[in-house]
Amino acid sequence: MAMVCLTDFEKYAKEHLSKTAWDYFSAGADECYTRDDNLLAYKRIHLRPRVLRDVSESDTRTTVQGTEFSFPVGISTTAYHCLAWHEGETATARAAEALNTCYITSTTSTCSVEEIVAAAPNGYRWFQMVVYQDRRLTEQVVQRVEALGYKALVLTVDMPYLGKRHNNIRNQFKLPPHLQFKNFNGLQKQATVDPKAYITSDPSITWKEVHWLQSITSLPIIIKGILTKEDAVLAVEHSVQGIIVSNHGGRQLDGTLATIDALIEIVDAVKGRIEVYLDGGIRTGSDVLKALALGAKCVFIGRPVVWGLVYKGEEGVREVLQILKDEFRLAMTLSGCRNVAEINRNLIQFSKL
Amino acid sequence: MAMVCLTDFEKYAKEHLSKTAWDYFSAGADECYTRDDNLLAYKRIHLRPRVLRDVSESDTRTTVQGTEFSFPVGISTTAYHCLAWHEGETATARAAEALNTCYITSTTSTCSVEEIVAAAPNGYRWFQMVVYQDRRLTEQVVQRVEALGYKALVLTVDMPYLGKRHNNIRNQFKLPPHLQFKNFNGLQKQATVDPKAYITSDPSITWKEVHWLQSITSLPIIIKGILTKEDAVLAVEHSVQGIIVSNHGGRQLDGTLATIDALIEIVDAVKGRIEVYLDGGIRTGSDVLKALALGAKCVFIGRPVVWGLVYKGEEGVREVLQILKDEFRLAMTLSGCRNVAEINRNLIQFSKL
Amino acid sequence: MAMVCLTDFEKYAKEHLSKTAWDYFSAGADECYTRDDNLLAYKRIHLRPRVLRDVSESDTRTTVQGTEFSFPVGISTTAYHCLAWHEGETATARAAEALNTCYITSTTSTCSVEEIVAAAPNGYRWFQMVVYQDRRLTEQVVQRVEALGYKALVLTVDMPYLGKRHNNIRNQFKLPPHLQFKNFNGLQKQATVDPKAYITSDPSITWKEVHWLQSITSLPIIIKGILTKEDAVLAVEHSVQGIIVSNHGGRQLDGTLATIDALIEIVDAVKGRIEVYLDGGIRTGSDVLKALALGAKCVFIGRPVVWGLVYKGEEGVREVLQILKDEFRLAMTLSGCRNVAEINRNLIQFSKL
Amino acid sequence: MAMVCLTDFEKYAKEHLSKTAWDYFSAGADECYTRDDNLLAYKRIHLRPRVLRDVSESDTRTTVQGTEFSFPVGISTTAYHCLAWHEGETATARAAEALNTCYITSTTSTCSVEEIVAAAPNGYRWFQMVVYQDRRLTEQVVQRVEALGYKALVLTVDMPYLGKRHNNIRNQFKLPPHLQFKNFNGLQKQATVDPKAYITSDPSITWKEVHWLQSITSLPIIIKGILTKEDAVLAVEHSVQGIIVSNHGGRQLDGTLATIDALIEIVDAVKGRIEVYLDGGIRTGSDVLKALALGAKCVFIGRPVVWGLVYKGEEGVREVLQILKDEFRLAMTLSGCRNVAEINRNLIQFSKL
Repeated sequence: MAMVCLTDFEKYAKEHLSKTAWDYFSAGADECYTRDDNLLAYKRIHLRPRVLRDVSESDTRTTVQGTEFSFPVGISTTAYHCLAWHEGETATARAAEALNTCYITSTTSTCSVEEIVAAAPNGYRWFQMVVYQDRRLTEQVVQRVEALGYKALVLTVDMPYLGKRHNNIRNQFKLPPHLQFKNFNGLQKQATVDPKAYITSDPSITWKEVHWLQSITSLPIIIKGILTKEDAVLAVEHSVQGIIVSNHGGRQLDGTLATIDALIEIVDAVKGRIEVYLDGGIRTGSDVLKALALGAKCVFIGRPVVWGLVYKGEEGVREVLQILKDEFRLAMTLSGCRNVAEINRNLIQFSKL
Repeated sequence: MAMVCLTDFEKYAKEHLSKTAWDYFSAGADECYTRDDNLLAYKRIHLRPRVLRDVSESDTRTTVQGTEFSFPVGISTTAYHCLAWHEGETATARAAEALNTCYITSTTSTCSVEEIVAAAPNGYRWFQMVVYQDRRLTEQVVQRVEALGYKALVLTVDMPYLGKRHNNIRNQFKLPPHLQFKNFNGLQKQATVDPKAYITSDPSITWKEVHWLQSITSLPIIIKGILTKEDAVLAVEHSVQGIIVSNHGGRQLDGTLATIDALIEIVDAVKGRIEVYLDGGIRTGSDVLKALALGAKCVFIGRPVVWGLVYKGEEGVREVLQILKDEFRLAMTLSGCRNVAEINRNLIQFSKL
Repeated sequence: MAMVCLTDFEKYAKEHLSKTAWDYFSAGADECYTRDDNLLAYKRIHLRPRVLRDVSESDTRTTVQGTEFSFPVGISTTAYHCLAWHEGETATARAAEALNTCYITSTTSTCSVEEIVAAAPNGYRWFQMVVYQDRRLTEQVVQRVEALGYKALVLTVDMPYLGKRHNNIRNQFKLPPHLQFKNFNGLQKQATVDPKAYITSDPSITWKEVHWLQSITSLPIIIKGILTKEDAVLAVEHSVQGIIVSNHGGRQLDGTLATIDALIEIVDAVKGRIEVYLDGGIRTGSDVLKALALGAKCVFIGRPVVWGLVYKGEEGVREVLQILKDEFRLAMTLSGCRNVAEINRNLIQFSKL
Repeated sequence: MAMVCLTDFEKYAKEHLSKTAWDYFSAGADECYTRDDNLLAYKRIHLRPRVLRDVSESDTRTTVQGTEFSFPVGISTTAYHCLAWHEGETATARAAEALNTCYITSTTSTCSVEEIVAAAPNGYRWFQMVVYQDRRLTEQVVQRVEALGYKALVLTVDMPYLGKRHNNIRNQFKLPPHLQFKNFNGLQKQATVDPKAYITSDPSITWKEVHWLQSITSLPIIIKGILTKEDAVLAVEHSVQGIIVSNHGGRQLDGTLATIDALIEIVDAVKGRIEVYLDGGIRTGSDVLKALALGAKCVFIGRPVVWGLVYKGEEGVREVLQILKDEFRLAMTLSGCRNVAEINRNLIQFSKL
């Protein structure tokens, strides 16, 4: 079967994963309204392509936090890659390195960060984390990834508690015994820490803990999980380096607006003072184009990476990224843009007849 | 089968009730447009969650008519609980007491109010009633429930005549012979009173009868069935203590707007002078959150309580309430609110791209 | 099977008519968009019911062209009733008489106007007609019905040519040989007149022919088939007595707006100078309520009458009318109105959250 | 089977073409959103028909670039007609000639332009082309068609690269070996030219190449593939003779707005200085009417012509055109217009209740 578009990988993954694993990766919270609306929202946004603009040379590169990526799509954080492919996150890391884009490693990866770095020594990576109740543990994690050359910390702020995902509850989902959260090996201080505490944030944290994080690291901090202009302005005021507009793939609070619908008010409020990224619902190159036209500097994909892993590990993820890169280049040129700098809001139809 | 969300109870009830009883409880008027729109309307409303606000401590309690409930969801009035579970309304009352919330007993309960009070002596209860043509009978009912410690009278005003529910007509639905309207035992004066007259209001009543009711009772009066700002303002002017925005679960006039769509104009018109509640269509914790964000002080659920009864009587209703309480707490904290006082209209997205 | 609502009659008719006859009656033009939107449009309009208004006495009567009807629903013109029931239009006429409402007889009835009048001598009737190329024939028709006591002429203006109804073409639909257009027996002068010419209007007619019609009759003239404020104003200026907002049940120009969507601009333009009626898509009492709230003085039903005929002839049509009358009374009282004079635009929700 | 409307031909073609050929002709880019929305958009636009305007004489003729057509529907450019019918484009040309309308011949026709002209010597034709990297080749093509009496050049500007059509990729679609691009026989200079280069434009071209084209031909130039007012204004400023509002039938950039939704801003920007045409989604006469009401001077159809070819070659295309002509005449007269000059924006309902 030819893998032509990202949904081909989705079909493959659904057929080849166990029901429990498929349910885990595809889960949305509650009624899955937000998970699904993340995709549908793109279909409600229409493009206004321009013509006759010499698109013989096209350049999909972008710069994120001062570093050049080959195209404006990175790999968002998802957990448990060993559930999808035996090599787990090391395969993901090699694919991201091969495509020269960013890989946001999950704290709850099933390979250790050392293994990940060893697998793709030249890859550009950010580290997704939460602030634990045990601040010493948090600090150790930060020091560990900083030492390994991670380029930024992505602080997840929409997970003070775990979202309610029906099928995971029905399946009594848990990590199989042969897999572990390797990033905590040798680190933890408190014997009493609940495994679940590795996933969710200390629910008490506020912007004060962002300051604390800034005090213990020299890495840039990116806040992941902002959906309002109010929080975006606070992010700017608290001197973080970026925002990922995200609703956690619809896995946390069901009923939030789609990320692409939240983007524009955030971009308008931030006024270019920091970079704004987005994840959730990206499935085609024209989705990427729409997100950039509405002001995202870069977008990140989650589930499609897992599908790629299920298909063929590193090679599968590379295929997923390459398809999206090719589609993005095609959408960009067919809309009359030669490079990401030429993509702007005029490409979007705001009202119709 | 794990009962994870309220629709699990709905499926169970549909499978275990007789068709006639299921049709009775699930009925909507005419084409059932309003019954269904009550639910769909929530899906059209999008949330704007806030982050990094210390939600380590969360408090779902609220105060209704000066009394504290454990969370802002009460049990709305539905009839004939003995059709759903052999213990009928006594089971419902015990569940409401256990969860420390309000139970609005229906006049047409199949247990007597005395039995209900005896079953859950510490429960907080309101009594749903209509004004009968026979005012003396009406007065006797009021005196009876006032003496039993009911805390308010909920006057149903949207039922001067019975709505047209197709399947009830096709099934020639009536209460089975072993069940009765026990609240009228020993009360009625007029031998000629039609049994149907226990359900529907005297269609002639106006705000004048509200005054009359105020003159014969010291209980607060809550008007149930208001859908417009005009009537809400009249309610304030006639010194009632609260309003339940309701379309009778879509069982009366088909084609009315959904209750959540009616709420905002009523809240704006009432300007906080009296408390505004709502019923209809609440199925998840985020529905509760949306209703509170739009100004409801508390919401009430009807059919889900019946489903809980069908499942396991008192225990089933407790499960239903507990699920909704947990979901509401989660939705509240995931939206950045620590307590109901922090829930406000900023949580709602009013327009999109 | 209990006949509870109008769609019950539709199901019955579909099962009992030949495919060709069913296709004829149910036909819409082209893609049937307008036929279907006539119904769907009502579902997009929401009611704002009022409460506590003493609806113990309710009165569904209305006055149309100075004559009292028992409720604001008349029988619109449809052809070929003998295809639906052996007694044809005589059965329809008796039902309309029994319910004390208006019956707009079609020119292309399969009973003669004399038979119709004889069958229901006390019925109130209007006569639907077109202006033929043969003005003498037209005049003879007018004189014939005027002499028979018809109370108004309903001039169809949306049928200069026959709409394109796919299934009628596929079925090569024509009137069966045992049926005829009896209203032309003994009248026609020109042997060359094409039978099709009995149905469609002379396409050349303009408001000038309306003047001509006024010159040959003392009957009020109602224009049927107006969908714009511009034509409504012209109707007023040309001194006709009424307008039927109609798109011919979606059988003529596909893609027009639904009649209920066209109504409001027409009512606003007419400013009460003449009466405005409507047909198309009425299936429930709340549809009638919405049309009256938006300014229609009376509505007319077409296909449901045919379904009633198929079911049980006169009795079936009476059942259809009675159901609609009961539903309208219920919707009126449940919205807080005692009579048609109290129905107004405040019952309609014009915008939502 | 009676062929009543254009979708009848679509069903026939789907049943009789090979899957690969059907997939080729029906293909849309990516998720086919735009391909499908081109049709759906017409259903969202409502007509306001006028009555009593003497439509006894109706005239569907229009004038395009100073030449009279029998009705405002031409044949848009589609490739590979020999895949649909053994006589290919010669059959299409004869049908267009018979109906006296315009046939835009595709550069990638499977009959040569000489064969096409010979088959229908009196037909009115435009030639669809792109500017190749090999300007000498381009010039030879232009000279060839100019010499043959083609009346305008239609420059496709939305195809700097080929759109991504999933099924064509899956099917590894290519022209069967017995067919060829006959228009390049004897012309090409560069042995290295990739066959794909015959289809797509030199992606480097800008309005400068439009000037160059004007310098080598005396034919009018029509720009095909404009979707924005900005590019429409540029077209006027660069002295072209017309615009075809087109998204290439949804085969190029998926996610663009439907052509009928793009039309109005273009018409408003062009202000009548040049003629504006449209293709995409036209399936009925009322679609044509809506496009003209919104300002198109003429519309063009693509896939329906192919379906007609599959059905019966020239005769099938004639049937398709005749049906659309009859439907357009009917829609025009039923909306109260006698000729295309009377069609205007007042026919369109811009907002509803």
